[in-house]
Amino acid sequence: MENSLKEAAAFFREADDFYILSHQYPDGDTIGSGAALCRALRKLGKRAQMYCHDAFPGKFQYLLEGLEKQSFEPKVIVAVDIADTQLLGNSMMSYADRIDWCIDHHGSNVHYARHWVVDPTAAATTEMIYRLIQEMDVEIDSKIAECIYTGITTDTGCFRYTNATPTSYRIAADMMELGAQAATINRVMFDTKSRARLELERRVLDTMAFYCRGKCAAIYVTRQMVQESGAGDDDMDGLASLPRQVEGVQVGVMMREKEDGSFKISVRSNSKTNASQICAQFGGGGHPAAAGCRLTGSIEEVRSRVVQAVAQALGEPI
Amino acid sequence: MENSLKEAAAFFREADDFYILSHQYPDGDTIGSGAALCRALRKLGKRAQMYCHDAFPGKFQYLLEGLEKQSFEPKVIVAVDIADTQLLGNSMMSYADRIDWCIDHHGSNVHYARHWVVDPTAAATTEMIYRLIQEMDVEIDSKIAECIYTGITTDTGCFRYTNATPTSYRIAADMMELGAQAATINRVMFDTKSRARLELERRVLDTMAFYCRGKCAAIYVTRQMVQESGAGDDDMDGLASLPRQVEGVQVGVMMREKEDGSFKISVRSNSKTNASQICAQFGGGGHPAAAGCRLTGSIEEVRSRVVQAVAQALGEPI
Repeated sequence: MENSLKEAAAFFREADDFYILSHQYPDGDTIGSGAALCRALRKLGKRAQMYCHDAFPGKFQYLLEGLEKQSFEPKVIVAVDIADTQLLGNSMMSYADRIDWCIDHHGSNVHYARHWVVDPTAAATTEMIYRLIQEMDVEIDSKIAECIYTGITTDTGCFRYTNATPTSYRIAADMMELGAQAATINRVMFDTKSRARLELERRVLDTMAFYCRGKCAAIYVTRQMVQESGAGDDDMDGLASLPRQVEGVQVGVMMREKEDGSFKISVRSNSKTNASQICAQFGGGGHPAAAGCRLTGSIEEVRSRVVQAVAQALGEPI
Repeated sequence: MENSLKEAAAFFREADDFYILSHQYPDGDTIGSGAALCRALRKLGKRAQMYCHDAFPGKFQYLLEGLEKQSFEPKVIVAVDIADTQLLGNSMMSYADRIDWCIDHHGSNVHYARHWVVDPTAAATTEMIYRLIQEMDVEIDSKIAECIYTGITTDTGCFRYTNATPTSYRIAADMMELGAQAATINRVMFDTKSRARLELERRVLDTMAFYCRGKCAAIYVTRQMVQESGAGDDDMDGLASLPRQVEGVQVGVMMREKEDGSFKISVRSNSKTNASQICAQFGGGGHPAAAGCRLTGSIEEVRSRVVQAVAQALGEPI
């Protein structure tokens, strides 16, 4: 059943013993949403506990400070920022068919919960959690403010993406006034890279090659490069957008070698060129601006096939 | 004489024939401030023309669209975002002692103008220009909104620096509602690098060396590296902050070789270590978080001297 945040707030105020689920490979928005809601519920004297298939990455630990673990059997299960139960991850899958409430901003939400509140105009689920906590009549302290700010800034790429709305900016301003250390949060989220990431980036930048009169750039990441640099999964974030950051590049390609020797191809488009259509030629898909597919062969063979498809889409010589 | 924005607005509404001066090496804030004010004055039917010692970089051209050149003798000279007449640049120096109004957000402003409005709490001078235009009772159109947004986002590093206040965020939100294309502006300002910059960054990252148990990192840029990569002055922006982006680095050092073979040293600090005090040992200075000095010698000699000073400041072995 579709519900409003007001209805959710009324329900939450009456109920107790909440499990709050975040999606696997957790990001700032799902953790921020969960932690903010958990804190608000505890401030009302209720028992509430966050759960996630994956451990929360170290850089998000400040969102969880002081949230001691509580052990109890749940009466209410809430999913935050989760569009589909597939995203719960294996160890949380047992909750898939018993989720009472879902608070989410993904337009693709499949309405798996008994009650759902979905607002695709929200840049981040924490924007919805902010309204929810206001409706619950809980005072927003500095820890809650940091959770809400974090969700907004991480989901908007520090207010850079098209999803950031005037409302996003205004809620962020409110959270700063309530104690969110915006500059510190943004430095950790956007201006900090691990030594391993640095080493990997050095190697990846050295592979950058240009095609189509500079409108296409391609990079690759081999398993050897990952191993030599000591990079983990966290360190791969955003690598695929490096090529299209170069002036004049309209389509960026990243090829990442997988364990079986095949390549995972990521295509990013700045322009009217449809990345999804390019990837569809190789059995992949995605969005117009970001899509992917998988190919086998040598680096040179694979790159040549993808670049050929890009050239055709751009209407340019290779 | 110190004045309020209200007084400035009253004066501007009565006067005519304005020259608006931006500082040399113009950035988004001085150009955005000048262009917003120029547009507002023209909307009141007045003659107004922007001037700057340097040409405005191509990436800021959208701020100037439709602002055809007007030729006239000035009756009022306004300096925007200029703390000191030294920053006018040679070709504008003839105006240094006849500036009628100065609108600026630098606390270091030396009050060189007949009338000045200085607000160090503003993250960008465009925040002040916004209030000024409101006081002038001029409707803010989408072009003016883009000028104001641009000054705020560039001076706050896309809302990342500590100078960004809730007010900065709220004005940005207002400007988006009035037509500023925030995501496009931020992509151009923060997610686009020239091929030359990319080539330079590759070379510079290869020079990165770590000291003081990873708390200090140093890079260098030689004239040869600049030449080989084809980089211009624009392409040097922000290079000095690359070292301190690495996890664990508290003090970052960049050494840039100058025409005379000496090195310009930039020290950036994330922590309580005072960059200004480090540079003062070599006759330089600056702020606690960002300072500079100049040294002569070989790369190795110069780096060793600076790293030694950093190590001492950090209380770490080299």
